[in-house]
Amino acid sequence: MALTVGVIGGGQLARMMVPPAVGLGLEIRVLAENEGSSARLAATEVGDYHDAATVLAFARDVDVITFDHEHVPQDVLQALVDAGVSVQPSPSALFVAQDKLVMRERLTELGLPVPDWARLETAADLDAFLADHGGRVVVKTARGGYDGKGVRVVTSSGQVADWFAGLSEGNTGGALLAEELVEFRRELAQSVARRPSGEIVAWPVVESIQRDGVCAEVIAPAPGSAGRIADMAEQIARTVASELGVTGVLAVELFETTDDRVLINELAMRPHNTGHWSIDGSTTSQFEQHLRAVLDLPLGDTGLHDEWSVMVNVLGGPVTGTIADRLPAAMADQPSVKIHDYGKDPRPGRKVGHVTAGGDDLDEVVFRARAAAEFFAG
Amino acid sequence: MALTVGVIGGGQLARMMVPPAVGLGLEIRVLAENEGSSARLAATEVGDYHDAATVLAFARDVDVITFDHEHVPQDVLQALVDAGVSVQPSPSALFVAQDKLVMRERLTELGLPVPDWARLETAADLDAFLADHGGRVVVKTARGGYDGKGVRVVTSSGQVADWFAGLSEGNTGGALLAEELVEFRRELAQSVARRPSGEIVAWPVVESIQRDGVCAEVIAPAPGSAGRIADMAEQIARTVASELGVTGVLAVELFETTDDRVLINELAMRPHNTGHWSIDGSTTSQFEQHLRAVLDLPLGDTGLHDEWSVMVNVLGGPVTGTIADRLPAAMADQPSVKIHDYGKDPRPGRKVGHVTAGGDDLDEVVFRARAAAEFFAG
Repeated sequence: MALTVGVIGGGQLARMMVPPAVGLGLEIRVLAENEGSSARLAATEVGDYHDAATVLAFARDVDVITFDHEHVPQDVLQALVDAGVSVQPSPSALFVAQDKLVMRERLTELGLPVPDWARLETAADLDAFLADHGGRVVVKTARGGYDGKGVRVVTSSGQVADWFAGLSEGNTGGALLAEELVEFRRELAQSVARRPSGEIVAWPVVESIQRDGVCAEVIAPAPGSAGRIADMAEQIARTVASELGVTGVLAVELFETTDDRVLINELAMRPHNTGHWSIDGSTTSQFEQHLRAVLDLPLGDTGLHDEWSVMVNVLGGPVTGTIADRLPAAMADQPSVKIHDYGKDPRPGRKVGHVTAGGDDLDEVVFRARAAAEFFAG
Repeated sequence: MALTVGVIGGGQLARMMVPPAVGLGLEIRVLAENEGSSARLAATEVGDYHDAATVLAFARDVDVITFDHEHVPQDVLQALVDAGVSVQPSPSALFVAQDKLVMRERLTELGLPVPDWARLETAADLDAFLADHGGRVVVKTARGGYDGKGVRVVTSSGQVADWFAGLSEGNTGGALLAEELVEFRRELAQSVARRPSGEIVAWPVVESIQRDGVCAEVIAPAPGSAGRIADMAEQIARTVASELGVTGVLAVELFETTDDRVLINELAMRPHNTGHWSIDGSTTSQFEQHLRAVLDLPLGDTGLHDEWSVMVNVLGGPVTGTIADRLPAAMADQPSVKIHDYGKDPRPGRKVGHVTAGGDDLDEVVFRARAAAEFFAG
């Protein structure tokens, strides 16, 4: 019998698990939110992942349940565990990824480097934190944020009055998170994969270039990162993975500070945008590795095909028509660039695809990747 | 709207078109022979490709029809063309691939290098050919042969008496094909892809190591083939593709003779076993390239990730259990090798998967690929 992986969530991360599943002879089934999901080819069911009965029915006969996102409620996750289903990553690991306050608390307990932070239950808490941190700080909702949503830079507590007012509703957690505004040189991301039996492998640390709070480009490996920075990044991610018991791919978003420290910004317990380059740039992609890891199969080599791999997101997509309409021009202009279309309708700011280029001259690789991505904009 | 490709036939070649279709945002639909086909994930219909009505219904709303094999009857192909469907490769190109006598006639007309051959309608024809070629020749059925089936080395016409007797039934064509027994140093294969609008790209010529008439290993590029041999192989394949109007991938199996000639052995107008290395070893795999070519999209770069790429077939598969059972040991032993499982039941001699290794030291790459494949045998 083929090993069977059930993925909750039908977004592009589930979609990009399909090719390596086909390659390795794994059966992949997706519980999608709607009929036209990005992962529709593998969607065996459409339903609500908040509903335990739906998820339990979907999970029947799979060897493991894993995820396209971290939003499955803890009671649903626990129902799966109670039914004897292998859930990877585990509910207790996911609990830390689901709530930014819990994450900060656990990382601080582990002695890992994080920005100064505070739990905010009232405007007075924020006023105090502002006073201690130069009058300008970051406030985040503990839950429900992604891609820059749920994050504001503020100079007074009135700027998040709506969030304080909403705390009683509980959708975003019982408190807010305040963080110092880190002076950083650039953002890095470190991905590792961990098996339930403990093996961990790392890809090289990458540089992530954000625009409006959304990942726009990734350079692998991060330029000039050999040595101390790379070692710190890998050590942080290995510690997070093993101490939190993460299984599958873990991505750690990092700040490289102007005073040469590395601080943890966010965690993602799944394949991550900053690892998409690995599909075309590494011997083992993050999607194949995630499948291997959650099935507790030995992990693959993470070497690079070329010295550099550069990924550029296609954000929003074409203003008129579809990515498919632009393929002829993009392919003719950039025959070496790998184009990825997530099969989603274009919409401003939406991640609808990415392109990856590889080679040994970074400037030239960046040029090719950007040139290809440009065909899918405007 | 997504570009939609319909593939007739649900074997491993259709299966391996699925990952690049997902990557490029193409919709892929497969008309499979049975429920449990290798390409079942993309099978939207199960039916008989000999039946025009079945195939016409399947082809509704696709942008192009292409193939997992060359066995679709000409009347069915013609019905598709008459209905306005884009059929790639065209029926007239496929006609040459479907019948070895037609193939030999056309290649000879084009002045391309082929072994001496003759059309055999009677035993006397074979006796004459034997007399002229040292008393030992190859006889092939014109139709229906593959992977060593339909091929015999004979020293007397009695050894193919059954085939002569069967000619009246017409399943294998109206005559047999005799060929001189070529003294060859090794077998090569040259793949190219051609778009309807004419663009052709080539991968490097590869060495194909056969066992019992079946491809066992492929080394890309063929060792020591730079220069004259590579140029001849590529020129032959380009000529075949353009003169026969082939679209999609064309694989030309070649003999490198002991007197330094290159002769055409067989043609395949589809992705071919000798090109599987390209999934992991080339910037553009033969499966992605085939999809691009049949859709008349610009073709991708065919450079190699490493100096060498070596593919070893998994023939037959495990005697007990499945490939999945052997994954842990194989992956642990060879973390850099890419394992491909076609999702087929093991059966003696059946192609059930392959492995590919890459690197810059050929001996070491061959060792790793064979070591990984060994886990799936016995």
